[in-house]
Amino acid sequence: MPDQIFETIITTRSHAGVVHVAPMGVRYVGEQVLLKPFKPSTTLDNILALGTAVLNLVTDVRVFAGCVTDRRDWPTEPALASDLDQSPEPLRLSCAFGHRVLRLVERRDDPQRPDLWMAQGPQVQHAAFRGFNRAQAAVIEGAVLVSRLHLLPAEKIDTEMQYLQIAIEKTAGPDELQAWEWLQQAVAQHRSSMSMTSPGAAS
Amino acid sequence: MPDQIFETIITTRSHAGVVHVAPMGVRYVGEQVLLKPFKPSTTLDNILALGTAVLNLVTDVRVFAGCVTDRRDWPTEPALASDLDQSPEPLRLSCAFGHRVLRLVERRDDPQRPDLWMAQGPQVQHAAFRGFNRAQAAVIEGAVLVSRLHLLPAEKIDTEMQYLQIAIEKTAGPDELQAWEWLQQAVAQHRSSMSMTSPGAAS
Repeated sequence: MPDQIFETIITTRSHAGVVHVAPMGVRYVGEQVLLKPFKPSTTLDNILALGTAVLNLVTDVRVFAGCVTDRRDWPTEPALASDLDQSPEPLRLSCAFGHRVLRLVERRDDPQRPDLWMAQGPQVQHAAFRGFNRAQAAVIEGAVLVSRLHLLPAEKIDTEMQYLQIAIEKTAGPDELQAWEWLQQAVAQHRSSMSMTSPGAAS
Repeated sequence: MPDQIFETIITTRSHAGVVHVAPMGVRYVGEQVLLKPFKPSTTLDNILALGTAVLNLVTDVRVFAGCVTDRRDWPTEPALASDLDQSPEPLRLSCAFGHRVLRLVERRDDPQRPDLWMAQGPQVQHAAFRGFNRAQAAVIEGAVLVSRLHLLPAEKIDTEMQYLQIAIEKTAGPDELQAWEWLQQAVAQHRSSMSMTSPGAAS
């Protein structure tokens, strides 16, 4: 049985207050949220340093596509966790339609992906969820592919992007179209950088 | 530019009170929701008869997979629209995490898919949305494929189901696994019914 994983955006801050925005698949286990950030990563460093993170529920999939194409500068605002008196204060994405403030309660170290068990604050809702949009799901799948460009064969990428394109063409709005364009550009750039490397060259 | 379409479950009732559950892609246009039910369909008949429908926001994707595999008997309960005094009263899916009562305000006829412009009541929230789940999106894509089994080549179905299976294996919970099983059974049944028909036989 696989774990049920939900794709969210985690926002964290460093001691100095610098915000970091990262897509992350999370598990809900009982009352807690389990995060498994990679080692090393800014998200891991920030959570260990400050003990908090914000789980953002986002349907603006430009954030997912943006984070895998070097566009990490998304507007944030105070997450307003009434039970936390912390500096720097936790920030949420401004485009989140809901968020929860998370607090580190337990950790289990691991060479690759430590387990961070987080207590959740109440879910704060900013907008209504409007239903499944197939284009949004396609962008998330595309973002997964783009984050693995260096690992996957070109043919597999092409076949899957072509398949995902169907849902984009049928059900996308302007945000999904822009996100999809970023992903396509990233694939094209990767290809052109590959073709500039001679086949036998060390990478 | 495509229209942004959201996949929802529409519940309607007949004059006699019989409930009908149907997946439907909807468009949000300004303050209204545009439904384009096929002609003929029970959803269309019911909305024209009573002037109302309920838009259900559902992450229990068994409903999507169930409706395309002859499992339409999902529990419902009163949608409690305070501004409507109607008999039979509108029903929502019990598993909906949110719903809106819709009221027909305008229609434009069409030989295949009439436009039904619906005014929306306030969104009533029953549970928190927890984030994108790739397996849920895969089930919805699989349900689209299964609803078109008679139109699509077997090879295309197999390739796409195989691709979708990856997200199922990585991110599904028990509900998504059950929904996926129903879809796989439907593909297998379609195949075996096809193989019992001789190639030249009229269908």
